[in-house]
Amino acid sequence: MEIFKGGRDSPTPQECHCKTKERRTIAFQIMSSTGLKNLPKHAVVKFDKVVTNIGGAYSPSTGIFTCQEDGVYSFAWTTQTASGSRFNSEFVVDSSIIAYNYNMPGSNSQSSSQTAVVDLKKGNKAWIRTYSNHGYFLNNAWSSFTGFKI
Amino acid sequence: MEIFKGGRDSPTPQECHCKTKERRTIAFQIMSSTGLKNLPKHAVVKFDKVVTNIGGAYSPSTGIFTCQEDGVYSFAWTTQTASGSRFNSEFVVDSSIIAYNYNMPGSNSQSSSQTAVVDLKKGNKAWIRTYSNHGYFLNNAWSSFTGFKI
Amino acid sequence: MEIFKGGRDSPTPQECHCKTKERRTIAFQIMSSTGLKNLPKHAVVKFDKVVTNIGGAYSPSTGIFTCQEDGVYSFAWTTQTASGSRFNSEFVVDSSIIAYNYNMPGSNSQSSSQTAVVDLKKGNKAWIRTYSNHGYFLNNAWSSFTGFKI
Repeated sequence: MEIFKGGRDSPTPQECHCKTKERRTIAFQIMSSTGLKNLPKHAVVKFDKVVTNIGGAYSPSTGIFTCQEDGVYSFAWTTQTASGSRFNSEFVVDSSIIAYNYNMPGSNSQSSSQTAVVDLKKGNKAWIRTYSNHGYFLNNAWSSFTGFKI
Repeated sequence: MEIFKGGRDSPTPQECHCKTKERRTIAFQIMSSTGLKNLPKHAVVKFDKVVTNIGGAYSPSTGIFTCQEDGVYSFAWTTQTASGSRFNSEFVVDSSIIAYNYNMPGSNSQSSSQTAVVDLKKGNKAWIRTYSNHGYFLNNAWSSFTGFKI
Repeated sequence: MEIFKGGRDSPTPQECHCKTKERRTIAFQIMSSTGLKNLPKHAVVKFDKVVTNIGGAYSPSTGIFTCQEDGVYSFAWTTQTASGSRFNSEFVVDSSIIAYNYNMPGSNSQSSSQTAVVDLKKGNKAWIRTYSNHGYFLNNAWSSFTGFKI
């Protein structure tokens, strides 16, 4: 009855339970549709114009990303602000700071980007917030918040 | 004949058709090898010096990324331009704008980056183009266009 | 004995050797905890404050990422430096330059980011180094080095 042992050379492909976990796609890209002004310290920066939001983990009404599935995620965000203003910001997970983004333009408006790579558990919340009371001005579509499950 | 039902405790590993889709790697990193000047509105920004181009989806001769396989992709690009010039740009998919990158230096040359995360179908084309007629100058190796299938 | 041929419609799931390779997670995010000054040409830029280091491929004591598994990796780094200083830098793999990051502020401090996507083999080493002798000043937590296996 050797045939029933199967193995590498078995000519009998089978339906199977693969041990490799299914990958779920969670990915978003959000722009700003309006300028934000005079945000206080630690205010949530709401990026509100959805370009991509696969899995729906990001809420454009609150500006909060809610982790739906344990895993490692990559995030990036860009702010653009005008000369004379500044828009320093932080990426936080459940209020813990993961990354900072500095943007204090010289004589012209300026764009600044930053990246965060972080291990999240289901239920963790992540967002961009202002650093101190420096959220003077965030111009619109030049600014963005993106992320995905690796 | 219970033995033939196999199942979790079966001692007989089998060749099988896994349901988990094979992941194909599509990933590129391209620099500029020359400065670009005075590009008109919506001109394709051709990054021409290939560092990585796994899958060959990016064409350095046209500046166009052609999606070979449905999926979610992450892209990023950086421009560097000189004081007195500006190089505002857009990432587009089949001419629809997905993301903007602002770069108008103050008193020194300046680098600006942006990220895009987007669901693509096979055959979609993606590229960086100038915003308005602001493609005054793009310095070379400091600028780049990168992307990969998540 | 048709039943033993298994196949797509087989009612008998089997343990199996999936051909799909297991994905191993390698991902890191590192900040600077101190300012760096007057670095010579090609000095390693040591980002020393670990936020994420899954897989432990990045060494905060040396600033070197050592590839533990063949694959395609995405990296990004951000520098922030003061007006009057400059911090131009390079991402290298075994001393070959993969990407450049330009940062020469105008009248205020400035942040600049860059991305690299590269195919690595086990044992390859990757790091950020200064470009020429321009590593005049790198401010702390506003700067970062991140990466992950795609």
